[in-house]
Amino acid sequence: MPMIVQKYGGTSVGSIERMKGVVKNVLKEKEKGNDVVVVVSAMGKATDKLIQMAKKISDNPCKRELDMLMSTGEQVSVALLSMILKEYGYDSISLTGFQAGIKTEGFHTKNRISDIDIEIIKKHLNDGKIVVVAGFQGINKNGDITTLGRGGSDTTAVAIAAKLGCNCEIYTDVEGIYTVDPRVYTEAKKLDYISYEEMMELSSLGAGVMETRAVEIGCKYNIPIYVALNRGNIKGTYIKEYDENMEQKVITGLTTSDDVLMITINNVLYSCKNIALIFEKLSENNINVDMISQTAPHDGYVNVSFTTSKEDMYAVDDIIEELKNEMKDIEISKESNITKLSVVGIGMMNQSGVAARVFKIFSENGIEFKQVTTSEISISYAINVMDKQKAIISIAKEFDL
Amino acid sequence: MPMIVQKYGGTSVGSIERMKGVVKNVLKEKEKGNDVVVVVSAMGKATDKLIQMAKKISDNPCKRELDMLMSTGEQVSVALLSMILKEYGYDSISLTGFQAGIKTEGFHTKNRISDIDIEIIKKHLNDGKIVVVAGFQGINKNGDITTLGRGGSDTTAVAIAAKLGCNCEIYTDVEGIYTVDPRVYTEAKKLDYISYEEMMELSSLGAGVMETRAVEIGCKYNIPIYVALNRGNIKGTYIKEYDENMEQKVITGLTTSDDVLMITINNVLYSCKNIALIFEKLSENNINVDMISQTAPHDGYVNVSFTTSKEDMYAVDDIIEELKNEMKDIEISKESNITKLSVVGIGMMNQSGVAARVFKIFSENGIEFKQVTTSEISISYAINVMDKQKAIISIAKEFDL
Repeated sequence: MPMIVQKYGGTSVGSIERMKGVVKNVLKEKEKGNDVVVVVSAMGKATDKLIQMAKKISDNPCKRELDMLMSTGEQVSVALLSMILKEYGYDSISLTGFQAGIKTEGFHTKNRISDIDIEIIKKHLNDGKIVVVAGFQGINKNGDITTLGRGGSDTTAVAIAAKLGCNCEIYTDVEGIYTVDPRVYTEAKKLDYISYEEMMELSSLGAGVMETRAVEIGCKYNIPIYVALNRGNIKGTYIKEYDENMEQKVITGLTTSDDVLMITINNVLYSCKNIALIFEKLSENNINVDMISQTAPHDGYVNVSFTTSKEDMYAVDDIIEELKNEMKDIEISKESNITKLSVVGIGMMNQSGVAARVFKIFSENGIEFKQVTTSEISISYAINVMDKQKAIISIAKEFDL
Repeated sequence: MPMIVQKYGGTSVGSIERMKGVVKNVLKEKEKGNDVVVVVSAMGKATDKLIQMAKKISDNPCKRELDMLMSTGEQVSVALLSMILKEYGYDSISLTGFQAGIKTEGFHTKNRISDIDIEIIKKHLNDGKIVVVAGFQGINKNGDITTLGRGGSDTTAVAIAAKLGCNCEIYTDVEGIYTVDPRVYTEAKKLDYISYEEMMELSSLGAGVMETRAVEIGCKYNIPIYVALNRGNIKGTYIKEYDENMEQKVITGLTTSDDVLMITINNVLYSCKNIALIFEKLSENNINVDMISQTAPHDGYVNVSFTTSKEDMYAVDDIIEELKNEMKDIEISKESNITKLSVVGIGMMNQSGVAARVFKIFSENGIEFKQVTTSEISISYAINVMDKQKAIISIAKEFDL
């Protein structure tokens, strides 16, 4: 029998009434004769409320216990959704991450799915059940409950679809993938298609609509992902393999992220050992460094800047203290009023000069940039938050986004 | 190392502040050099709130999903309590029922603990950890999350203590076990000791302070259970093996329960087959029948009355409909304004005439009773709710409770 995985986010399951809307959507597929797996997030702001409780205990609560706490959010959702399905006369079963055989590895609150024992879900589907799976969570090899980080429910859905070899639909509160977040640029255009590569780049650079890891899995197993509004019949966006028939543009999308903490370490005695030490310590503490820049040595000293996520603020502070013990001369400054603005497009691979066009726009509009990084299909600029809106509008117009 | 199991109820863990009080109590034991297992309930009214959500979906929601839903309550408590312990610098680990190896069997929402893989808890204790276990829940052989019914956290605590072979302390919002619930009879006396048998009888007859099954396990494994207030140093009550030194009274305690639904089936064609059919159907549907009475046959017909819990109201209605199909003549009436008043005491075994003394009190006070049942150490009377207070006071005075 054909199968489908549908994922519904927190807004879609924010109340019993909304869950009934989700059930209607699910049953449409069921009535077509499809086996359906439904992956859901926690209800509305449930996860935030749980985190607030933990924050009353500590600014940096034990992450294993935080996973234990947060995972209850999805468990509530799956139980209620399955109850509704049964109330409507459909056979259904809810499964937590561990019950669905979702094995994970890595650091608590940031786990990755390492494997799924898909036979469990298959068995329930074969029994004619609609299988409702808690997104965002799994179990590690110690038997601890784990979570996959924000947006992890998308990953759960795509990973299950990959294992089942079927399509995946992500229902959300936006109508699809836009060239620019329509909340910040109202004239942004909705895309019919976007390639995995472009979507991964956009997601990893801050586009909140899809989680990078989810797109990565979709790409690896070539599972088409359809992103659409959780109600009505508005056409969404397909994330799929790049093909020649997709519209050719230099830039497909623009995204920004304000979750940028920029740290500058001045007066580092110039030696490979010192520079390595800084980034080793960051890596040991699982801090993801994004942009890095270094000044040319001057009188045997260099200045090193890097950006990271604001959520690592406390961990970074601890590392800075350690570094100060080992490198007496260093001076450290932190900036948090930074936006990272990125442009993404497969077209960049064949067409040079995108960076130059952006630099020109910045110069014409008096926008200062602090760091630049590039990948094959993207360029990112660290700019002041106050320049964000101006930069978005001028770039979107230049590249017809 | 000496071990102890402590259990804290919903009121004790009703807020982060209260949890900090619990942690103080736990650490007192830890500082004495004891290994501590802490069993906790859901925070305050958390379970009720979850049930309310389910009731928005159905009057009689799927019980498997209800267990899935309710079990999140304790999971939140254990995660937060363990976070606090860690914040105070103590090594600790929270475990859900399944993680703690608590296997159960039976009907959803009313499961029984069938076994505990105690090596899991022992390992963590050996590692120097304070082990925080979610009460009230476990996992059945299908891998479904189950719950033990209201008060089930007591059972979890005593069962773990039984497996570890150590004492169990139940901290609650009352100061111990009283002869009569002090909320209904303010002059009630607190007991220093009560035997397992008397406590089981009192619990099963409605005394809310301890769960019957918990006392039963304590009795079977001879685990002393100490019941005390969750704060301060007020002396509580020991539930332990009966010994000659305990104060000798005819009646140790009196308890009442308003959770009584009395069903009368009139005009049942008198045959063993018919009577058996009624109680078979109730049993098949897992409805616990408490008191039963039957009139003498008259013109080949009898009237049968029985009492059950109000929570089985809907299930009983379904069975009545079935019975009507098979026994055309029957007429059914239901009464819910009934209280069951019970007196309990090991002394009754050696002293007759307790029933007669109670009947005399009823007659002197104009109290009508509808059914009577007796066990070796208890007598229960079904009376009208409106007579409850009068009956309690007059019996408590007569037997010096």
